Formats: sequence, C-alpha cells, structure tokens
Amino acid sequence: MEAQSSLQVFVNGSFTSAPQAFLHISDLAIQRGYGVFDYFKVEGQNPLFLDDYLERFYNSASLMYLQVPYSKEDLRQIIGKLIRLNNLTVSGVKMILTGGYSEGGFEPSAPNLIIQQQPLVLPSIAKVTQGISIITHEYLRDLPVVKSINYTTGIRLLHHMKAQNAEEVLYHSNGFVTEFPRCNFFMVTQDNTVVTPAENILKGITRKNVMKLAARKYKVDARDIMLDEIMQAKETFLTSTTKRILPIVQVNGQLIGSGKPGPVSLELLQDLIALEQSVLAEPVK
Amino acid sequence: MEAQSSLQVFVNGSFTSAPQAFLHISDLAIQRGYGVFDYFKVEGQNPLFLDDYLERFYNSASLMYLQVPYSKEDLRQIIGKLIRLNNLTVSGVKMILTGGYSEGGFEPSAPNLIIQQQPLVLPSIAKVTQGISIITHEYLRDLPVVKSINYTTGIRLLHHMKAQNAEEVLYHSNGFVTEFPRCNFFMVTQDNTVVTPAENILKGITRKNVMKLAARKYKVDARDIMLDEIMQAKETFLTSTTKRILPIVQVNGQLIGSGKPGPVSLELLQDLIALEQSVLAEPVK
Repeated sequence: MEAQSSLQVFVNGSFTSAPQAFLHISDLAIQRGYGVFDYFKVEGQNPLFLDDYLERFYNSASLMYLQVPYSKEDLRQIIGKLIRLNNLTVSGVKMILTGGYSEGGFEPSAPNLIIQQQPLVLPSIAKVTQGISIITHEYLRDLPVVKSINYTTGIRLLHHMKAQNAEEVLYHSNGFVTEFPRCNFFMVTQDNTVVTPAENILKGITRKNVMKLAARKYKVDARDIMLDEIMQAKETFLTSTTKRILPIVQVNGQLIGSGKPGPVSLELLQDLIALEQSVLAEPVK
Repeated sequence: MEAQSSLQVFVNGSFTSAPQAFLHISDLAIQRGYGVFDYFKVEGQNPLFLDDYLERFYNSASLMYLQVPYSKEDLRQIIGKLIRLNNLTVSGVKMILTGGYSEGGFEPSAPNLIIQQQPLVLPSIAKVTQGISIITHEYLRDLPVVKSINYTTGIRLLHHMKAQNAEEVLYHSNGFVTEFPRCNFFMVTQDNTVVTPAENILKGITRKNVMKLAARKYKVDARDIMLDEIMQAKETFLTSTTKRILPIVQVNGQLIGSGKPGPVSLELLQDLIALEQSVLAEPVK
C-alpha cells in the first residue's frame, strides 16, 4: 500500500503526515523563490549513492549562504527513519532547504527544512526503446553548480515543449550546450567517444556514474559541446536520477544518427542498472 | 495599533490572521520557485496607482501561464476589504500568485493567491539627504518584464553588499546598466537630461511616474546606458514603490557628481510626493 495520504514528511524537526505539511507564507521560497534542494532514489529501504547527494545538498546550501540545521550524520538518521516509516518499494526522497521565515520578506533567516518521499515511476521500456524528442532553448541558469529551486524558465517552457511534441528542453548558451532543466546531456561521437558538457551545468550524480561506467569501455570527454555538433552525433542521451539513461533520437525535429536509440546508450543503461544492483547488494553500513 | 499578530491575510478565497496563513509544501513556489507577485503602497484606505499595479500583476501572471482566479474588479474588492480590515496608516500590499499545488512537483496547477498587507516605513530624511552607496553586478533576470518571485541572485548578493557597505546592487548586462533587484535606475546627465534604461528591466510604476514628472521640466530619455557612462553623470538615483526616489552618491566606491544628492533628484522627489498627495485628494471612485 502506497496511499499518498499515509506518507510521512519531515518538516523542521518533526514527522507529520503529508497532507498536514505546511510552511507559513513568510517563507522565503514563497516570498522570493529562495531555496535549494536535492533528490535521490530509494529502492526499498536503501538510498542510492546517498553520500554524493548529501555532499551536493550541503554544497548548494553553502553557496546560497544557507545552513543545513543538521550534521550529515544526523540528516542520514532522519532520512533513514523517514524511509522506514513510509516503507515504499521504489521512491524518491526530496530535501528542500528554504531561506526561512523572513520578517521583511527579503532577508534570509533560520532555514526551513522539508524532507519528503514519494513513489517513483521509472521510464517505461517503451520509452527507452523508442527514445525521445527534445527541443533546444538559449538559457543559462543563474548559478549552474547550485541545485536551487528556481525553475522559472524550465516550467515556462513546458508549453513550448508540448507545442512541439518534445519531452525535454536542452539549454545552450553562447553556442554551447549545457544541460536540461532536470537532466544532463551526453553524446556519442562518430569515433565512439562519450562526451558530456563540462561547464555551466549542475554536476549530476547519475552523470558522474555514467562517465565512470563509460570509461571502462570508451574514451570519455567532459568538454564544451557546440550546439551544431550534436546533430552530427552517433547517439545522444540524457541522464538523471529518475530517468537513469534516456536515449534522445530527435533534436528540434531533426533525427540523430539512425533515429533510434543506439547501442552505446542502451549498453550504458544496462551497466548503470547493474551498478545500482551491485550497490544494493552491498551490506548496509 | 498596528500589532503584526492582528493583521489579516487573504489566502485562496478567505481572510485569515497572518500567523495562520500557510501554504502546503506541494506549492510550486516551495517546490520550484514558480510564481509572480506585485506590491503597491497604501496611504490610509487608499491604494496608490492601483490600476497600474493590477495591470502589471495580470500581465506577469499571463506571461508565466498563470491565471489570476479573479477579475480585476473582484480583486479590487478583495483588496479594499483587506485594507479596511487591517486599517493601517502607511502600508504595502503584496499579491503573490504561485504555480499552485503540484502533484508531481513540476507541472503548475490551479494557482494559489496570497494578498498580504504590512506596515511600511519609508526611507528616513537622513537617508534621502545623504544619499546611498551602491555596487554593480553583471546579471540579467530571466524574464525582466515579469515580476517573478525569483530573487536568487539579489538575495545572494546581500552578503557582497554588506561587505562593501553598499545599500543596493545595480545589475548590468553586456556593458549596459539595467535595474536593481527591486528598483529602477535613473541618471541626470551633464546637460540635465533625465535618462533611464529602456530595455531588460521591470517597468516600474514609480519609474513611469517619475518619467512623466521629469518631462514637465527636463528632457527625458529612455535608452541604453553604458556602465561607464554613469560615472560621468551629474546625479544618479533609484526609484521604487517603497523608496520613491533615493539619491545614489557612490557607485563601486567612486563618488557621483558632487558626492551629494543633487537638485534634480530632490526636486523630482518633491514632485513625486506632491503627485501622490494630489491622487490621494481625488474623490474615491
């Protein structure tokens, strides 16, 4: 049973049922969109690659001058308790840290911390084997290295995506490809090099894992990628925590390579799934 | 008596006391910083230039694909009731429209509307007669014409401002001055032309009024202003709803003109105060 109404949420020090989880309107996320977050996948009781996600969360907070009100070890305990309480099969845990309740509505105060967990549906096999269409859009996030809650542009572009039957939008800036609102970009060049943008991106944990996996079999290169360049790629795909590896077969209406998911993308997806399984098989620390 | 605890707030169709005003954590402002707002000044029971602020609020909402759940006339009634309930002397009313409660945490749903009112303290005479110091920072807002709730950069820069004893930070992009996080920029050139940036800014209501007032006495020009250019200005000042006109006497540590608030700035401030008084003296529609 994964009834939404019975899920527990951690808000500022206590567990509460999800429908009872509120923030006062003076919170700086509501007043000024000010906050950071992170999101990791959980299989059964096991968070995947939690160390990496916690490190990024604390780093985002620090760069936004926000202090996580718990040590990493304490936060790990809270997350563990939340996962036990909710007892989901496959899920995602989202930690949100806001600028806190601000009297004047502009200056941050003691941050508010929310930790929520929801069932997660991974991409269908049909989607993986068909691949997806994307569009591109010129945009650079304010602080790409920070996982801030600001998705103004990404959400506005939902309308453009729907109008063009696209599933994602790839940002580029000054002629160089950067990232998707919630995913990283990869391409496989004609000489079978696996390439991903190096700069002006959020450093995805899945991106890091895929780079490591790819390096066992291919040349891997993190470098600037020109927007034009991706049209000449053999394969393109995106990576994210919730989507793992999703092949991209069309960009702005133009087919990439054969127009079908390529062998490198699909092989790396199998390798990634195997990596997740091996991590899950390790004895719990 | 203006005790904070007794203030009423309008949230999604009903009035509630400010401490009881909450949004559920699934709201898209909390999840993704997605929302718009606007803010106007109220003297006694009289909102100032309300037509202009309402028009901008509805326009911001529309450009973010959000629908204000009331007609302008209904919203005006709600605002009128809020103002009567709170009965403040000098105050500001803030309308916030968020992306609503989002099941998946990304797609907007029916927007949440908050209307809050708080006592307003205008800049002191000392501040006006001394003028302020500012710093500059390269940044362009995502959608300058929209009053979105995203102040990630402006709030992060509070630390830089404090470190440099500056009160505001002026954005510039590609060598051109644009705006402050919450104010517009003006300069008076050596030939007494009142100049303000034309592009890549939020069109301030106070900016509009000041341009009109200035045009009665001076040449007024809305055009691109190079960052270097402001150092040669006779006077510089900012405009905003809460600050009216505030002279700027130092930019990045360098004095502007005489290093004191100039006669054009101070005269326009008197004209603006007179305009506000004349509007307040008009019979209520």
